[in-house]
Amino acid sequence: MRSFSIVFAALTLAAAFVEAGTDVRREIRLPEVPGYRLVRYDPHMHTVFSDGQVWPTHRVDEAWRDGMDALSITEHIEHRPHLRDIPADHNRSYQVALPRAKALGLMLIRGAEITRPLPAGHYNAVFLDDAAPLATPRFEDAARAAVSQGAFVFWNHPGYPHPDGVARWYQVQTRLLQAGHLHGIEIVNGRRYYPGAHRWCLEKKLTMLGSSDLHLPRQVDDNLDDGRRPWTLVFAEGRGMEAIKRALFARRTVVVGADGRLFGEKKYLSPLFERSIEIVQPQPVPRNRSWTYIQIRNRTSLRFDLALDPPAHLQAPARVNIPPERIVRIPVRCARSSSGETRAASVPVTITNMRVDPEHGLGEKISIQAACARGPSTPAR
Amino acid sequence: MRSFSIVFAALTLAAAFVEAGTDVRREIRLPEVPGYRLVRYDPHMHTVFSDGQVWPTHRVDEAWRDGMDALSITEHIEHRPHLRDIPADHNRSYQVALPRAKALGLMLIRGAEITRPLPAGHYNAVFLDDAAPLATPRFEDAARAAVSQGAFVFWNHPGYPHPDGVARWYQVQTRLLQAGHLHGIEIVNGRRYYPGAHRWCLEKKLTMLGSSDLHLPRQVDDNLDDGRRPWTLVFAEGRGMEAIKRALFARRTVVVGADGRLFGEKKYLSPLFERSIEIVQPQPVPRNRSWTYIQIRNRTSLRFDLALDPPAHLQAPARVNIPPERIVRIPVRCARSSSGETRAASVPVTITNMRVDPEHGLGEKISIQAACARGPSTPAR
Amino acid sequence: MRSFSIVFAALTLAAAFVEAGTDVRREIRLPEVPGYRLVRYDPHMHTVFSDGQVWPTHRVDEAWRDGMDALSITEHIEHRPHLRDIPADHNRSYQVALPRAKALGLMLIRGAEITRPLPAGHYNAVFLDDAAPLATPRFEDAARAAVSQGAFVFWNHPGYPHPDGVARWYQVQTRLLQAGHLHGIEIVNGRRYYPGAHRWCLEKKLTMLGSSDLHLPRQVDDNLDDGRRPWTLVFAEGRGMEAIKRALFARRTVVVGADGRLFGEKKYLSPLFERSIEIVQPQPVPRNRSWTYIQIRNRTSLRFDLALDPPAHLQAPARVNIPPERIVRIPVRCARSSSGETRAASVPVTITNMRVDPEHGLGEKISIQAACARGPSTPAR
Amino acid sequence: MRSFSIVFAALTLAAAFVEAGTDVRREIRLPEVPGYRLVRYDPHMHTVFSDGQVWPTHRVDEAWRDGMDALSITEHIEHRPHLRDIPADHNRSYQVALPRAKALGLMLIRGAEITRPLPAGHYNAVFLDDAAPLATPRFEDAARAAVSQGAFVFWNHPGYPHPDGVARWYQVQTRLLQAGHLHGIEIVNGRRYYPGAHRWCLEKKLTMLGSSDLHLPRQVDDNLDDGRRPWTLVFAEGRGMEAIKRALFARRTVVVGADGRLFGEKKYLSPLFERSIEIVQPQPVPRNRSWTYIQIRNRTSLRFDLALDPPAHLQAPARVNIPPERIVRIPVRCARSSSGETRAASVPVTITNMRVDPEHGLGEKISIQAACARGPSTPAR
Repeated sequence: MRSFSIVFAALTLAAAFVEAGTDVRREIRLPEVPGYRLVRYDPHMHTVFSDGQVWPTHRVDEAWRDGMDALSITEHIEHRPHLRDIPADHNRSYQVALPRAKALGLMLIRGAEITRPLPAGHYNAVFLDDAAPLATPRFEDAARAAVSQGAFVFWNHPGYPHPDGVARWYQVQTRLLQAGHLHGIEIVNGRRYYPGAHRWCLEKKLTMLGSSDLHLPRQVDDNLDDGRRPWTLVFAEGRGMEAIKRALFARRTVVVGADGRLFGEKKYLSPLFERSIEIVQPQPVPRNRSWTYIQIRNRTSLRFDLALDPPAHLQAPARVNIPPERIVRIPVRCARSSSGETRAASVPVTITNMRVDPEHGLGEKISIQAACARGPSTPAR
Repeated sequence: MRSFSIVFAALTLAAAFVEAGTDVRREIRLPEVPGYRLVRYDPHMHTVFSDGQVWPTHRVDEAWRDGMDALSITEHIEHRPHLRDIPADHNRSYQVALPRAKALGLMLIRGAEITRPLPAGHYNAVFLDDAAPLATPRFEDAARAAVSQGAFVFWNHPGYPHPDGVARWYQVQTRLLQAGHLHGIEIVNGRRYYPGAHRWCLEKKLTMLGSSDLHLPRQVDDNLDDGRRPWTLVFAEGRGMEAIKRALFARRTVVVGADGRLFGEKKYLSPLFERSIEIVQPQPVPRNRSWTYIQIRNRTSLRFDLALDPPAHLQAPARVNIPPERIVRIPVRCARSSSGETRAASVPVTITNMRVDPEHGLGEKISIQAACARGPSTPAR
Repeated sequence: MRSFSIVFAALTLAAAFVEAGTDVRREIRLPEVPGYRLVRYDPHMHTVFSDGQVWPTHRVDEAWRDGMDALSITEHIEHRPHLRDIPADHNRSYQVALPRAKALGLMLIRGAEITRPLPAGHYNAVFLDDAAPLATPRFEDAARAAVSQGAFVFWNHPGYPHPDGVARWYQVQTRLLQAGHLHGIEIVNGRRYYPGAHRWCLEKKLTMLGSSDLHLPRQVDDNLDDGRRPWTLVFAEGRGMEAIKRALFARRTVVVGADGRLFGEKKYLSPLFERSIEIVQPQPVPRNRSWTYIQIRNRTSLRFDLALDPPAHLQAPARVNIPPERIVRIPVRCARSSSGETRAASVPVTITNMRVDPEHGLGEKISIQAACARGPSTPAR
Repeated sequence: MRSFSIVFAALTLAAAFVEAGTDVRREIRLPEVPGYRLVRYDPHMHTVFSDGQVWPTHRVDEAWRDGMDALSITEHIEHRPHLRDIPADHNRSYQVALPRAKALGLMLIRGAEITRPLPAGHYNAVFLDDAAPLATPRFEDAARAAVSQGAFVFWNHPGYPHPDGVARWYQVQTRLLQAGHLHGIEIVNGRRYYPGAHRWCLEKKLTMLGSSDLHLPRQVDDNLDDGRRPWTLVFAEGRGMEAIKRALFARRTVVVGADGRLFGEKKYLSPLFERSIEIVQPQPVPRNRSWTYIQIRNRTSLRFDLALDPPAHLQAPARVNIPPERIVRIPVRCARSSSGETRAASVPVTITNMRVDPEHGLGEKISIQAACARGPSTPAR
């Protein structure tokens, strides 16, 4: 027996080094928005404790690397394909992951996924105290068990598992909403965006969420495009998990898709854009028809796709994409030679990848210094 | 209860799609070597069933994507940090992975890692029938239990867990060797190469092996450089697992490092080089001193780093790297203007990343058509 | 003066090394097609000798690196913005580039771009003996001067410089065609595809061409997506430039877009697909409803996007993309449990990125071994 | 003739769009250093006007994309391999590039390269008014002509064109220095670092410079590693070119190598490090032996390679690399279980890629909160 205890002493050392490597985090840079702390939250993912393929601490490591501030591991209550090998209770995955989250300074918010056949579908409950009571035959009882703990409940991937991928609102959702047991909907899950659910959130005053729903390791998960993770940007008032919870119930979220689209209300999208970009113009646009360059600096990890609608006296490209943490230059010139004085021209732009509803991008304006005469223009060509 | 069976019917469908995505394999292109079937084998990796972070089927998927033909999942017998949550027996990881390997056409070779304190260290046994008998207090008994099943036993990462990373040969290894219970050594494990172990293999007629020793998902494993996997190239005579086993016992291997270095005997390295490359020379090197280009086509996924030693009448670069599946052009010219006839010049080259022992690269020759006079050369500069 | 000759002796040496570095070529792998030699040809690009930004030898180096077999540098005859600094004649760019092409084994086909205002537009003449006679006031005279040398004349980017980018056929093109002075059209130029021009080629028996029209260095050219180059795949009968010329006049081309789409007649596209892929199926699809995997190996640098239309008794994904030089696995299972015998099922596929006309992809079939019963199927879900 | 003027009207439009695309700049993020404006300057590159391969405006575009604030195009005075085709005077390249630099807000500092045989070698003169007087037979006269215009003169790649690449100091350099005609040396040119020149700069009070010496397009230049550009970080006092000039004469520079090494005096390197990083520690290192993580945030585009020398009561990795704009986590624990109070431990670190001379990295300290007892430690293993 003594030889065995020696074995394990040596192994503890070895294992410690395996666990304790250096690692790299890529922060998600966001602007300062007065009055709020912006929290990067991924509220939906799985491990080997339900139908995922990785150990719970690995989800914490992935979230840390990806710049998240908060995450929820949400094992299926009803779907446990590894149950024969992993017969743990419904809170175990959280317990395994928690020390790693604390050591890394991440907020791990306890959650679980209620996983029922249509017409109910799948729902995450987050801010749980105990996931066990959700394992109950009737769906309504499971939702009630979550809400009775003060949990925030949202409908996951509402177009799945419909074969056509289209979200449908049934009576069960109406009952849930009326009972106060439904607080939000995933309008983005992995690579999929659900425009119908986006509309429901606006109409029914539900919180918009986006999540990765990871099952495989993040780099190879086939629910993601190129392994990029969607997430929920939470406008918290103050620090800590309680502030996140209050913000979720108050619908203060913007959803960030894996493809860089942003979905939310104008009051949240607008400051994100305005405080992310800065216009730099080395020279005013001259009277003659030479090109000059407007430079737009994007200080953040967000992308902005602009559709420009320049006034008749200015020529500029119709579409410009501004990648994260880059400066883009936009060629501008007068539509005709003229004798104008340099003054500011206001150019309406639509940020086409910031969606205030499924059909409309965010409208803004940018200002350009130009000496172009504003009178009736002869055609530029 | 009925509602529950409905739940699970729906879930089976959903889970099936999660499991059954399309995926992409990158083949490792190798030359044809007469008399052999070349097998790409990674003989060492872990899952959540010991101290790894992924589910066993995921290791099969990773190996398939990486172009492996064969793999062994080798859980630690003695080190089971997830034992509280995963109390399975020592064969379970293999059983979980096997159907996926069969569906993908990969050979899954049953293995386990005997994990003992120094001076013994860690050993893989592969081609096991049953891993359970290896769980026994005395190290020598574990090795004997493996060999009695016909297993091939090799010493893993012989410099680990020594604090300085340097491999040391103790009496226990001598005893193991004399008992016929040690057949090979990992000279490459993850990103590490053990030159001392390389020498021991040559001196003691042991088989050279290289392995990934994956613990994390392959893309982020910190034992690998940039997530690239080392592996063992097996020169099998015929198809199937028995042919691999015979080749391992017959020491017919080349080790492929994650950094693209290749380690092996000249009789195996030489045909790999010669049958991988092709010389294309659009024009002979002319009498005057203009440059012409020798082109070397590398048809394989191997890299070749060349040190050239051109004869005095030819000027050429001293070092040329030939990346996988590319053509490299090498500028050559006569060292002086001359009146020679076009004929073949033989240029000695050393393939510095193909190591016949820790100190020496493989020596070869390439032939160049040139009209340079071969007489005594005046200095080129 | 003597000091100056010493200077230049030293500089010649230095410059020689600048010019004579090693470099790497990425070959474009294509299948063998019986009866033809497949030639990779980029027939349209510019240098500082007209409105490009690089020296002519650099275009040859770029083409060599990108795996081209043949190229034409086609300076604008009428548009020479650097004329003040580079007052060379219209053949000079070709002469500067030719020695480099010969040293690298590339075919440099002499060409020039006739550059006229709408409704004429821009035309490349390739296989010229002398570009000088094309500098003549009347457009028809320039085309005649080219054809009188035996040149092959094609219309470039037929939607440019129309402000809306849409190609328009005017009387001038009708006259050119009737005179026998128009032999082909660029249906792809840089990142743009002209479906109208594709239709004209089919209707009027004109050769389809694709080109990069490079102006900037290839890596940063803003006419290309991510710096990838479109090109023309020529089905030559025999070696050398004359064989290419005969193939162009005989309309034996497939156009390869920068986005990986392929445009051509079914008789050329079909062998490209059939000889590029290989089906590997480790196990037949079993009678029970477990998934098995069909593997499709793509040996070439071409991409194939498949739309599958499986028979009712088989379940398989609707869309599968097969990247270059990769294997893709496709999950397949029986639509219901059954008692069938294993036999071949024929699955119609459309290769959606191989276009026989602007509206239709290439239709093919692939064969799958399956034990699924073929009788009337109950719905799979 | 009329048809020709129409041609050129159309072409002007077309060319304007070719010239006037959108483009993307990647800024080089640096910390604020009180009292200085940090300027990113690449003082050495070539175009088709000497032996480069691109048009002058393209060098400006490349510099803008790469985040430079200032550049010098320095054509060889004596080496003009394209002279037959481009017979311009020595100032023409600057004149061609200047309007583009102004439109983009870059400082274009007029320069030229005096290019003489050994033992003189090559020298850049920057801040010239007129490059023409440098074309004179005697080397000393060329240097004098530069200095008489107030130019800053530095020795380029002092190991080139020596066949062995090693820099040698001859009498001609002593004479130049004594005459006040030598102000700095390139200690980095392209991918090469000259440790001997680094020492001469320290001994002889010469300014250290680093440059790309681009000849090919930046993405493919074979003088650079992976196309990354080295540059000179200038500590200017105030805006504009005069401030750069004063800083160069005052030796206020840090050289940034293409491999991320930084070379300079401690007084400039130290604030770069200290103001670039921030230590974040979610938890103090606990008394028991569990690992906790120190996180180091690097806000800049600089890389820092750390060698740690932890005190005996702390365990931590010996080497940690901190990539640009990332956070790195470093596992730390007590060397033994203890009963200490939490307090700050000071850990000496050497930033091994910041070189104060060829042999020594920059020494700094970082502070860690830990509850480890500091008394005599029993060995950790």
